[in-house]
Order: sequence, then C-alpha cells, then structure tokens
Amino acid sequence: MTAEAGSVAAGSTVAVDRERSVTAPAGFRAAGVAAGIKVSGAADLALVVNDGPRDDAAGVFTTNKVKAAPVLWSQQVIKQRRLKAVVLNSGGANACTGPEGFQDTHTTAEKVAEVLGAGAVDIAVCSTGLIGERLPMDRVLSGVDTAAAALAGGQRAGLDAATAVLTTDSRPKQAWAAHPTGWSVGGFVKGAGMLAPNLATMLCVLTTDAVIDGDQLDAALRAATTVTFDRLDVDGGTSTNDTVLVLSSGASGVTPSREEFTALLTAVSGDLVRQLQGDAEGVTKEIAITVRGAATEADAVEVGRIVAEDNLVKTALFGSDPNWGRIAMAIGRAKAKLDAELLSIQINGALLFDRGTRAQDRSAADLSGRDIDIVIDLRVGDAEATILTTDLSHAYVEENSAYSS
Amino acid sequence: MTAEAGSVAAGSTVAVDRERSVTAPAGFRAAGVAAGIKVSGAADLALVVNDGPRDDAAGVFTTNKVKAAPVLWSQQVIKQRRLKAVVLNSGGANACTGPEGFQDTHTTAEKVAEVLGAGAVDIAVCSTGLIGERLPMDRVLSGVDTAAAALAGGQRAGLDAATAVLTTDSRPKQAWAAHPTGWSVGGFVKGAGMLAPNLATMLCVLTTDAVIDGDQLDAALRAATTVTFDRLDVDGGTSTNDTVLVLSSGASGVTPSREEFTALLTAVSGDLVRQLQGDAEGVTKEIAITVRGAATEADAVEVGRIVAEDNLVKTALFGSDPNWGRIAMAIGRAKAKLDAELLSIQINGALLFDRGTRAQDRSAADLSGRDIDIVIDLRVGDAEATILTTDLSHAYVEENSAYSS
Repeated sequence: MTAEAGSVAAGSTVAVDRERSVTAPAGFRAAGVAAGIKVSGAADLALVVNDGPRDDAAGVFTTNKVKAAPVLWSQQVIKQRRLKAVVLNSGGANACTGPEGFQDTHTTAEKVAEVLGAGAVDIAVCSTGLIGERLPMDRVLSGVDTAAAALAGGQRAGLDAATAVLTTDSRPKQAWAAHPTGWSVGGFVKGAGMLAPNLATMLCVLTTDAVIDGDQLDAALRAATTVTFDRLDVDGGTSTNDTVLVLSSGASGVTPSREEFTALLTAVSGDLVRQLQGDAEGVTKEIAITVRGAATEADAVEVGRIVAEDNLVKTALFGSDPNWGRIAMAIGRAKAKLDAELLSIQINGALLFDRGTRAQDRSAADLSGRDIDIVIDLRVGDAEATILTTDLSHAYVEENSAYSS
Repeated sequence: MTAEAGSVAAGSTVAVDRERSVTAPAGFRAAGVAAGIKVSGAADLALVVNDGPRDDAAGVFTTNKVKAAPVLWSQQVIKQRRLKAVVLNSGGANACTGPEGFQDTHTTAEKVAEVLGAGAVDIAVCSTGLIGERLPMDRVLSGVDTAAAALAGGQRAGLDAATAVLTTDSRPKQAWAAHPTGWSVGGFVKGAGMLAPNLATMLCVLTTDAVIDGDQLDAALRAATTVTFDRLDVDGGTSTNDTVLVLSSGASGVTPSREEFTALLTAVSGDLVRQLQGDAEGVTKEIAITVRGAATEADAVEVGRIVAEDNLVKTALFGSDPNWGRIAMAIGRAKAKLDAELLSIQINGALLFDRGTRAQDRSAADLSGRDIDIVIDLRVGDAEATILTTDLSHAYVEENSAYSS
C-alpha cells in the first residue's frame, strides 16, 4: 500500500511545494506564451522540454470513446515510452474536428520537432478549450517559435507553462516534492474532468530527474493515477481530452526503488488533485466520501462514485443539510455487494444511520464549514476507497448554463 | 411492437382523458382523506378498493437495494397475483426505519383488511415522504377508518385519492382510456423517480375492468412500464419506494387480447409519464432524447440515459445552448457499441454534428421553447429508444438544497 501514501484518501505524507512544478527536477525547461489562440490575448501555449540525458516517458488518457485529435496522436507516440517535449494549448480542444483536426495536431508536432531538432514522434500534444472548433494554425505555429525562444529552467518558466494551459481555472496549480536521496517529481495541472464545461479537460504534465525506464514509469503512473486522479469525481464527466503525462530526464543520476518512486509520484499527484477539487467551478463544499467494509476496492469506488454523482446528495450538501436518506438512496443504486440491514453512514463524525436504521439525530452533524467527510460502512468485506467531490451549487448551474458558445 | 403504441417515444395514439382515473373502470371505489400525517393538514391517505368480481393484480417495484418497508411488504403480497385494495400515504416514506417500520406497514395492512373484511395479504401498502422517520401510526390507523367511510365510485373519489398521495407535485396526475369493445384502463401517479428530494418516490396505481388473469396482467405491466416509466430519467434517481400497481376487477365481462390490453395499458402509462415530466421540480425544458442506429435496444437506452443524466448537457439546455459538444462527450462515456466517426447529433431538427465532425452552425438550432428534441444516430445497428428528461435549472438546485429536514 505504499502507493496509498499521498493518495487522496491518506492525504500527502510528503512535504509538497506548490511554488514549483515541471522545471524543478533537473533536466527540464519550459515556457508559456500568448500565441493569440485565445481571443482574450491571455497566455495560451505552453512547451515543456526534456533535455535529458534520458527521455523516458509514459501517459494515461481519457477513457471517453470520443477522443480529441491530440489524444489520438499522443496515445500513438507514447507507445515508444519516449518523449522529447510536450506542447499544450488552451483556447481550443481540437475535439470532434475530423481528419482535418488530426492533421492540425500532426502539423503542430512536426513544427515543435523542427525547432527542437527532434522527430515528430518525440512530441506529445495536448489541447483544451471549446469542442468542435478548428485551431487557428497560423497562430499555433508562430506561437511554437515564440515559446521555443522563451524556453528556460527555473521557477518562473514553470509557472508560465502552468498558467498558459488554464481555461476556467481561477489559478495555476503546481506541486513539487523532493526525495532525500537526491531526485524529485514536479508537475502542473489544469481543469478537473469535465468540470470546465465546453472548456473541457484535465491536463497534467509531471516531470522527474530520477533514473527510471519507460515501463517502470508507466507502471508507477498507473498506480499513482488510480488512487489520485481517478478518485476525483466532480460531475461524472470524463472529457474528450483528459491526459496525464510523465517525463523523466534521469539528470539526478539516482535510481530509486519502484516503491520510492511510486510513493513520491503519488504524493505529488494527490496534491495536484486536491488543488483541482478546491478550484472546481461553483464549489462551496469540498467533500470526501470514504467507503469502508466493501467486498472489493472496485465496489468501494463504485459506491463512492454513485454518491459523488448524485444530484440530490450534492444539492443537499450545498444546503449544508446532512441528508443521510439521500445518501442511502444513492448507495442502494450501486451494483456493489451490499445489504441495507448492515449499512452505516457517518457525516462529519456523527453516526446518523447505523445497520439499517436511524441513529443520532441529523442535527448532530455540523455541515456549516467547507469540508465535509462522509464515511459509509458496507460491512460486507474489508476493502476501502475514498472519492473526492464537490457540491452542486447555484454557481455551478450559472457557470455551466450562462456560458455562451 | 404493439406495446410501443403510446410509449413515450411514439406519444399516445389513444384518446386519453385526464379528468378520470382509478374509479373510471367498473368495479372500483376510492377515497382520499386528511389523516393528520402531514403537519400541513393536507390530504395524506388514499384507499383504492377492488369490488370485483375478480381481484387479479400485478406490480413492479424499485430496483434500489435500499427498499422501504411498504415495498418489502407489497412485493411479498403481490406474489399471489391478487389484491383487494391498496392503501397509500404521503407525509412519510417509512424507509430506513428498520424492523419497527416493517411492523408499522404490516399493522396498516391488517387494519385495512379488517375494515374491508379481507386478509392482510390482500392489501398492498405504498408510502411517500421523508426517509428515516417512523409514521404516526395512531393517525394512519384512524385515517384508514375515515377513508373507508369515504369510499365511493365516480370522478370525485378518484381525484381525492390522486390528490392525497401528492408531495412536492404541483398537481394531481390522472389518465383514463376506454377500448371500443367496452373495457377501460385508468390510473393516477405522483412524483417522478427521485425528483422529489427527501419526499422521494414515484407511486402509480392503475385499474382496469377487463377480464385478464394475474400472470397476463404481470406480463402486460412489465411490457408497458419498460417503454414508459422506465424511459423517464430526470436525475438518475430510483427511490426507495417506487411502486406501480395494476388491479383488475373484470367487471366489464370483456376479455381483450394480450396485444389490445398491453397497448391500452401502455397508452395510459405513457400519458402519466408525460405528466410526470411536465411537473418535474424546477423543469423549464421538456427534453426527449431519441437514440437511433444502436446495436441493441439496451445500448440505445444506455446512451439516452447517460446523456439525460449529464449535468453539463442539462445545464446547457437550461441555458438554451445547443451545446452538441457536451452531448458528444456524454455519449462517449457509454459502454454501448459506438464509433465517434459515425456519430451524428440533431437538436430540434438541426444537424449539428455529422459522422464525427461539425455540420450546421449551432445557431441553426432554436432552443428558446420549452420542448427540446435531441436525435442521436450511432449508425452501428437499427435499434432505437427514446428517453425523456428535464433540464438542470436554478429552481432544481433551490428546491433540492433549500429543503430543510
């Protein structure tokens, strides 16, 4: 369970620095510039370059069957487990754009490869923004030149890159953690699932200077995302563009054990996920749903998700109402093994429903604060999982309905 | 596909009278009274009695694993395919109330049996209201006496019963349709899935004077509900108390064919479902999602439901935004067989997304009205289904969060 250290459940046991990100590990440069893709003129193109000596890489992508062009491209190039650079743009998702959209992604990768003296297959592409619109390629390509010229190491360059990918996010989200043996993991993230309506997508770039080969990097990334990114569920959405990439330069010369590396990668990922939850659109409550006593971890996750996605639960929590009846109703919809007679529900420490019948009066649960902890005990096994979510507020409806395309 | 006549997809092809309900078919009496279960003093207890000569019956119940006491009771007694009467109360769901709650339901059935000179196993019980509270049994039992004394045939008695079961519904919902060969089907309904927050539950009582045995009645009810009640999805909720019962008196002396009976039962059920959609909490848009070209009907239903339950789609439609990108994203989350390159999306007649790429400009779709028709073509088969839903409005959030327990 080393991977659980720093999972959204445990909370990070590692000191995480939110002022640093992808350029903190040795061997990386980054840039973030305004290419004119966004009509607002805000920064909208980021570049993260791995200067080596190694170029191991891995990635995980959206499970949505409607995948954006950059996802289709990056899924192909990552198969070789090597990347020289990642180019990211906001201001357009390049999703549902057909063969022309895929060609735009390919052209972007070729341009980055050209300026970096690499091959197009060494370049991953990420896009976020409106679905169904072609990108203004002239601006994307000139933006790549501008970004290449601005490439630098250090804290500022990392922050520029983390800022250029933002859409409806209210702030950049960075995290970095170092291992006592002399290597570190850093990264930035934007969005949160389909939290940001048309401006879809969760994009995350992680870097490390540890010496680790691509297959181990891939295994560590899957272990880390399973207990972090996969445990945040704001509105059940999984976008057409969701991407998490990790690049390793090996510049520290240190080879950590698989457990050490997975633990630190998980700690950094878990911190980034908590930042996504805290910056969710319209969020007024940060909710952690822990499901205990499940027959399997998959059952625990399913029950946590069905509660996290239930609009009646989410609206009740927005109203600070410890409405355990709605939680029991939502749990009952799960396919997971459960028995209503064994079920218990605790909210912020108050046991309101115990083994199929009411326990303490709901007034015992104080939901006036921003943080809400729900603990569900199924009592049919010993598997456990925690899902993070947010409430369903007027602001959520406003931000997602007032948006005009 | 006779059963499709009058399904939510086709719309009723039969003349339906919304002024009549359970007492319109011969052989039935009903009553609705104020028993004092609701603190408001509004009507809260209804009785529907079958005077025969026959007493065939069938029922379908919530699939939720957390079932209210009256559901557990009624599921048992319906196994004999015979019912003398149904007693329904609003003002309390009697769900999550443990063994004591089940005893309360049993006691209620025994009381009704006593006043009607029947056995407790001939009495179905339905409850709706707050989850987790015991019922005030003294008031329930005295209410049964009051209701029994008020039992009558005719339009007024049916309306009284249809009114006594209401919770957050804004109006009673009745439907009746006659067959030219001299028999009819009538019914009333309240709620809509988990539409009514704590005041959970969809309850429906249908009656007929056709001559039809319990097994055929059961088959017809399952065929009818599959294409009507099962095709309304407002917020994905299925309550702890959902119940649909059908009682047959055989008083017309007419034995319809299975097809004739299923068609008329489906027409009446479909009309009641459209009334549920129109009275949904916070509804500002009545949305029909038709999925065509699916590999199987189950796939069509899954895709329709995943779109109907997507908060980003529901908030966009509240904002009258023909946001096909969110619909494509939602479809992509389905397990159903589909290919993004074949997918098309039409909204109110405008083809906005065709075979994987954008078609007409979204401005071609006018969503200013209350009715929105979404047609999704998967082009992987020839199965089809229509799901009815509503939008996610500020009023929905308000009604579901401001509610104070």
